[in-house]
Amino acid sequence: MPSPQDCIFCQIVAGAAPSTIVHEDDRTLAFMNIAPAAPGHLLVIPKAHATDLLDVPSDDLAASARTAQRMARRVVGVLGADGVNLVHATRPVAGQTVFHVHLHVLPRYLDDTIQGMWTPTPGDPNVIRSVGKRLRDAVERAG
Amino acid sequence: MPSPQDCIFCQIVAGAAPSTIVHEDDRTLAFMNIAPAAPGHLLVIPKAHATDLLDVPSDDLAASARTAQRMARRVVGVLGADGVNLVHATRPVAGQTVFHVHLHVLPRYLDDTIQGMWTPTPGDPNVIRSVGKRLRDAVERAG
Ligand SMILES: [Zn+2]
Ligand SMILES: [Zn+2]
Repeated sequence: MPSPQDCIFCQIVAGAAPSTIVHEDDRTLAFMNIAPAAPGHLLVIPKAHATDLLDVPSDDLAASARTAQRMARRVVGVLGADGVNLVHATRPVAGQTVFHVHLHVLPRYLDDTIQGMWTPTPGDPNVIRSVGKRLRDAVERAG
Repeated sequence: MPSPQDCIFCQIVAGAAPSTIVHEDDRTLAFMNIAPAAPGHLLVIPKAHATDLLDVPSDDLAASARTAQRMARRVVGVLGADGVNLVHATRPVAGQTVFHVHLHVLPRYLDDTIQGMWTPTPGDPNVIRSVGKRLRDAVERAG
């Protein structure tokens, strides 16, 4: 994974790499995805480098969520999107390809070709309760 | 769409419908998804009813994001997940089926069967810039 100096999103924050910026505030930046899955596909990032959801300071995460909401309202209000997904990926198995934490704001349209990630299927209630208990009783790592 | 009284997630908040609760604080609740796409699949909601990302108060959204981060750390730390997705859907076209705003915390494993929603493909830079300009110049709706 690159150091912040080599990070393309840090370069965008610094103005050292080109991007189409839609919104900027003290903590966050929203800019157009250059590989959009649908018209208006945006990325929201904290300006301060963090790798993913596990290490981003929670204040930066919260600010990013607020910015994502503003962008979601814009793609509906301005572009007429029929809905919106927010998608975030931590680590390659989840689809992360840029290692500066980011949220996708993905406008959805009735005629788009985006697919669901899974098909909801009821799970085994006993297994679910058991896993839930392990998660509930866990001591969290600092953060 | 149901009124809050008919909302299954409001019933879970009120303790009137069963669920496996993993975390609760003043503003948010995290509980196990009964139709998990992978072991440890959680939902995070604000306790106060809101329909989706467009109408949820931004403080409730920010609190939900913070809770989602805590849950993401737990599924990695406790269950050994190899990564995590956060997924949110606003409106049916995006996959929303329960109309109380929620965030999926989806643990990812190297051997899971979850698929990506889209295949990244470079877009037309001129179109992207033009759409970005419309979004940047938009006057936001109140919220
Ligand atoms: Zn960076
Ligand atoms: Zn509700």
